[in-house]
Amino acid sequence: MVQSVNPDEIIARCKTLAALSEQPGCTTRTFLSPPMGEVHCMLRAWMESLGMSVSVDSAGNLRGHYPGVRPDAPRLLVGSHLDTVPCAGAFDGVLGVVLGIAVVESLNGRRLPFGIEIAGFSEEEGVRFGVPFIGSRALIGTLDAALLEKKDARGCTVAQAIRDFGLDPSRVSEAILKGPVLGYVEFHIEQGPVLDQLGFPLGVVEGIAGQTRARVSFRGRANHAGTAPMHLRHDAVAAVAEWILAVEREARATPGLVATVGQVEAIPGASNVIAGEARASLDVRHATDAQRAAGMDRIVAAAQDIARRRELTFECSARQEQVAVACDPNLVMAMEKAVERAGLPLHRLTSGAGHDAMILAQKVPVAMLFLRSPGGISHHPDESVRPQDVAAALQTGLHFLDQLEQLHGR
Amino acid sequence: MVQSVNPDEIIARCKTLAALSEQPGCTTRTFLSPPMGEVHCMLRAWMESLGMSVSVDSAGNLRGHYPGVRPDAPRLLVGSHLDTVPCAGAFDGVLGVVLGIAVVESLNGRRLPFGIEIAGFSEEEGVRFGVPFIGSRALIGTLDAALLEKKDARGCTVAQAIRDFGLDPSRVSEAILKGPVLGYVEFHIEQGPVLDQLGFPLGVVEGIAGQTRARVSFRGRANHAGTAPMHLRHDAVAAVAEWILAVEREARATPGLVATVGQVEAIPGASNVIAGEARASLDVRHATDAQRAAGMDRIVAAAQDIARRRELTFECSARQEQVAVACDPNLVMAMEKAVERAGLPLHRLTSGAGHDAMILAQKVPVAMLFLRSPGGISHHPDESVRPQDVAAALQTGLHFLDQLEQLHGR
Repeated sequence: MVQSVNPDEIIARCKTLAALSEQPGCTTRTFLSPPMGEVHCMLRAWMESLGMSVSVDSAGNLRGHYPGVRPDAPRLLVGSHLDTVPCAGAFDGVLGVVLGIAVVESLNGRRLPFGIEIAGFSEEEGVRFGVPFIGSRALIGTLDAALLEKKDARGCTVAQAIRDFGLDPSRVSEAILKGPVLGYVEFHIEQGPVLDQLGFPLGVVEGIAGQTRARVSFRGRANHAGTAPMHLRHDAVAAVAEWILAVEREARATPGLVATVGQVEAIPGASNVIAGEARASLDVRHATDAQRAAGMDRIVAAAQDIARRRELTFECSARQEQVAVACDPNLVMAMEKAVERAGLPLHRLTSGAGHDAMILAQKVPVAMLFLRSPGGISHHPDESVRPQDVAAALQTGLHFLDQLEQLHGR
Repeated sequence: MVQSVNPDEIIARCKTLAALSEQPGCTTRTFLSPPMGEVHCMLRAWMESLGMSVSVDSAGNLRGHYPGVRPDAPRLLVGSHLDTVPCAGAFDGVLGVVLGIAVVESLNGRRLPFGIEIAGFSEEEGVRFGVPFIGSRALIGTLDAALLEKKDARGCTVAQAIRDFGLDPSRVSEAILKGPVLGYVEFHIEQGPVLDQLGFPLGVVEGIAGQTRARVSFRGRANHAGTAPMHLRHDAVAAVAEWILAVEREARATPGLVATVGQVEAIPGASNVIAGEARASLDVRHATDAQRAAGMDRIVAAAQDIARRRELTFECSARQEQVAVACDPNLVMAMEKAVERAGLPLHRLTSGAGHDAMILAQKVPVAMLFLRSPGGISHHPDESVRPQDVAAALQTGLHFLDQLEQLHGR
């Protein structure tokens, strides 16, 4: 194994990039905001110092190419996103790009039978336009005219934001992947507590969970908090509370199922009025679509039962489904071998969060490697990553390239 | 029994007054808004046609005097409020004033050993300034300088609103009750479903429930709805849901206790984020202060237990207490005899809602008579009252005057 980049240097680079923000004292970097240009500038310098050719495509994705032994060699994409949530940590997304560059740097100029393309996606979090994955969608050709016309809170469209950044939105189709691609690999912090609880530095992602999102509403009868006796109430808040516990119970009883009520609202929402309506959000995820659908059915049935017993009505609306995505079995196996060759404990897990890999999977084989998130903390300034875990990921990345070399011929 | 006023006429008068509103198509009449002047004008005309002397005091209360047999005779106050909630019904408050005038009208000029003062309070609902009972407070001398400086949403003070109505806020102390007062009697719709469920037209109020209002907060740990497994969550929404059911269970298990969570909020309140904090309101009422305090203690203990089990923190803040108010036993007994003499079934009940009588009780004996609210509907345009129940209340009012005559000498 060649000498690899110092993990502290990788962490320091991420922290340097975290200072490039729309907000002083806090990392916020949305789609093609001015600090994104500064991030591009720094990453471009690092990549060009490794002899890579770097460009920004018309969707604002930073793309750096490290050629293979032959000019017509297929490419392995390695990437993640460069945008952040408001007041983000320093590692979500960016670490995957910086680690990718560090993998290339660790090759010390050695050419492989395939090229490596580092992709720093312009948008994954969905903060500015309410639609996530704008960057990676461009690579598979689904950044379409409708999406280009989406507006942010100030009325600026995606297309205009692209123009404001000095790019040409009429050329986004040029961002589409061309030529032979071996696959897409993404390094990402776990953003959850599983690896930290297990004491494992890395996890190999088998797939990305499917999601159902819905809005629910219980309607009872608003009434006076002082004059309506308990037995004559049709309290929508009590009904939604009973249902929230049913959601929790259902998810706890089903291995791998997670279900969350993250928003809840009472209407009219006065302290002295029994709520006539209660609205809530529902987010249900599972690695297996059938299990998710069955869990969702049981959650809806529980709501209907509660509504019937309490003499309220229940409605589940604005339901959105996103199917589960499987990682590529060959790439997953290569990643597992790489973890083992790095002398690390092997743990497979499902990603509960969506990632750019989910989008790329529509066109190319994908794999993901999760790095332990200490305390499971993410989307927060306290988000962190351990140097030894970064070193482990880098070693694993290099072993992964070895595995691919064996598969695709030296 | 003398010929009394037609109940349909009383209902028609209330509906006429309901058309005097700040909002077209909907009854909204807050403290000393322009339509309040029109209400005064109509009620003044009705009272003056009965030979009553009418004035508006410096707190904007309409006060009509029907003298007793002697000029120095004590007075019985009969009244309610003339303001409304936004998009109100036609009877909450106003009916008590119109019924009082109808009682005087039914006397057909007969003089009693006591005078009758009809009081139409300027403010009870607390809509404009967030503070209720501005009108009745003036009669007991608690409309003080601090209250006069309270501002509405547009920055207008109570004092300025009084000036804008053509009155002099420096003279509010002149509104204070003077001379001998036998008591205060208020006719009011129940605003709840109890009498309607029992099939009784009237209910004699024994007292007004005490209230505890509080804000509670559960703090857990915000986390990603996709990446945090169920067993590693400290979900504040699930905790508040469990507590809302405990509040309901506690109130159902304690006769006479009502407890309501009318507001609930998840923070940050995103569909894909496990809430780190959940806030809710709590409203607890009981006719007996000790029972209310004990219920409140059990509700807080349940919250602490839930927080402990789920590893969250619980805080109960901004707690406000209002003690229970008992109606005057002699006036209650006189009212009960009046109900019986009117040939009606007798039902005693506690008012769960606050009323002007609660304020007057600080200075004079009070009694209240509730009229059945069909469907328990109140604070809503569908609020109604049955003509036969209005007739029953009018008859009961006249019998009540008879009872007082017997007590205070013909």
